[in-house]
Amino acid sequence: MLLLAPRSNHCISQWLAGELSAVSALLESELVSDLDCVNELIGHIEAYRGKMLRPMLVLVSGLAVSALHRPLGEGPTWRRSEAQQKVAAVVEMVHLATLVHDDVLDEADLRRGRPTLNALRGNEAAVMMGDFLLSHAYRLCSSLERPWIAEAIAQTTNIVCEGELLQLANRDNWELGESTYLEIVQRKTASLCGVCCELAARLEGAPEQVVTALGSYGRDVGVAFQITDDLLDLLGNEDAVGKSLGRDLLKGKLTLPMIHGLACGAAEREAIMGLCNDQPPAAIRQLQQTLESCGSLAYARGVAERLIDRAKVALGALPASAAREALEDMADSVVTRRL
Amino acid sequence: MLLLAPRSNHCISQWLAGELSAVSALLESELVSDLDCVNELIGHIEAYRGKMLRPMLVLVSGLAVSALHRPLGEGPTWRRSEAQQKVAAVVEMVHLATLVHDDVLDEADLRRGRPTLNALRGNEAAVMMGDFLLSHAYRLCSSLERPWIAEAIAQTTNIVCEGELLQLANRDNWELGESTYLEIVQRKTASLCGVCCELAARLEGAPEQVVTALGSYGRDVGVAFQITDDLLDLLGNEDAVGKSLGRDLLKGKLTLPMIHGLACGAAEREAIMGLCNDQPPAAIRQLQQTLESCGSLAYARGVAERLIDRAKVALGALPASAAREALEDMADSVVTRRL
Repeated sequence: MLLLAPRSNHCISQWLAGELSAVSALLESELVSDLDCVNELIGHIEAYRGKMLRPMLVLVSGLAVSALHRPLGEGPTWRRSEAQQKVAAVVEMVHLATLVHDDVLDEADLRRGRPTLNALRGNEAAVMMGDFLLSHAYRLCSSLERPWIAEAIAQTTNIVCEGELLQLANRDNWELGESTYLEIVQRKTASLCGVCCELAARLEGAPEQVVTALGSYGRDVGVAFQITDDLLDLLGNEDAVGKSLGRDLLKGKLTLPMIHGLACGAAEREAIMGLCNDQPPAAIRQLQQTLESCGSLAYARGVAERLIDRAKVALGALPASAAREALEDMADSVVTRRL
Repeated sequence: MLLLAPRSNHCISQWLAGELSAVSALLESELVSDLDCVNELIGHIEAYRGKMLRPMLVLVSGLAVSALHRPLGEGPTWRRSEAQQKVAAVVEMVHLATLVHDDVLDEADLRRGRPTLNALRGNEAAVMMGDFLLSHAYRLCSSLERPWIAEAIAQTTNIVCEGELLQLANRDNWELGESTYLEIVQRKTASLCGVCCELAARLEGAPEQVVTALGSYGRDVGVAFQITDDLLDLLGNEDAVGKSLGRDLLKGKLTLPMIHGLACGAAEREAIMGLCNDQPPAAIRQLQQTLESCGSLAYARGVAERLIDRAKVALGALPASAAREALEDMADSVVTRRL
């Protein structure tokens, strides 16, 4: 489950596993109700739990900043910050809420190989459970007694919603350009990853240039993550991805390889549009080949890899430490993941 | 638009009209985006703006509590509290979000005679705009630098979501009892009205028993409001209500007069269930007559009126003032309204 590659400092992996369990426990203790019917729906949210990328960004960023103040001890001496853990649980709840509402928007039946909440219990219950998750996220962050955290989270969810709305406004827009695509991804995905790192840094008392550097690391990792997600929607192994391929196209969402392919030349554009008129996944293999021969898949991978390089450069604002190395590994794993 | 009856102190009505304009201006200044496509959707929210009951509960409760501390001046000497206004804008945004998501849940096409957001722009845009409204509500209340306000709002939205989920779990439940109906209404409608009054009282430094009394006033007014809403769905003038009658039944929602009618006797139960098998509004007139002859309409009105009486008794915790009189008038207007 962890995004950390084997070279990662063993102590960090162990520490993180413990911290993530604590975050999960916090999340479970926040998401309860005195109504049985609500608890039953909460049970279905389990299927949405994934890699915990955003809680990891919070926890490892905080640890990397703490190395600014003191030499990094080994393993058990790392102190546990209640505020970092709460922020980690909050961003995961916000993320879960966006997944639940996204599945309603996309009429998705499967996520990670399991039925979505809307497929199981209808759109109405899914809309309301998304609201319930958002509301609990705000409840938990307003309990922190540091109003700037709740304000930053709410400001970020404003931006996430705008990204989703911009994406909706561009459904079936075959003229969508790369800059608007990146604007959508910056808002709907990268803004939350960025605020994870920024809040963790501020909570550890990092100087402003370190907060800025970590925020830009998080946003770059977020965009690269989304581009990789979009590539997996075209190229992934269906069993591993846990949903049918080509869903973005089916829902009229143009992604980076498609935008590149459509701009490749008149003949290529016509071929790609022709293939997209078929219902996926019938033509998906041919589409993969066309985008491969246009260099569009390589182009999208290249954009993601350059973002990861830039993200790692930003980490230069931090002293060398096992936690900084773990942030580098997390960035790398985002573009190499197969799931 | 104001809920205040003519007998109300003229100065309060004038003061309130000015304050509500300021709340509207605050709401409009919060609900903006740098994206044109988002601003266009925000434009459609205008159709959802109504009587501003919840902002009125905040403002008049605050005013009634301020009479505890000093003799109530006339008109222009009443000071304007920025925090009260922000809270008033926050609760209205939360309310608007629930309306937008409710219309998705209910597949409603019309609200107050105008097309709903889901009818105009699809469910996807409506789900996301509801999230956008909720997110902006939390942003505005977290900017208040009084974390207890944001926490109370988020705790209330937790409860509102639970009420909606309990209602969903009881769709098409012909065995729904009065206590579960009241539990739904307490959560989905009354909790927000209650917190309006409580927060206003706390902001004015009211002693705990006044906060409790005003909270119970707000909750009773909220339940009575919902019962009246449910009666209007069965009995209203379609032109005035601005939507087709019998929508609750169409969506499998049992309301108080129906619950009473179904429990009236075996013959009545059979007659009512038979009438409900027809698509409304075909059988709605007959249903009205049956519920009238069972005494179910009078019963529901009686429950609402007793709640209003109890709400007014709770106001005894406050000194006599023009603002307290206005709270009494607002309570009365909730059960006498035709819209």
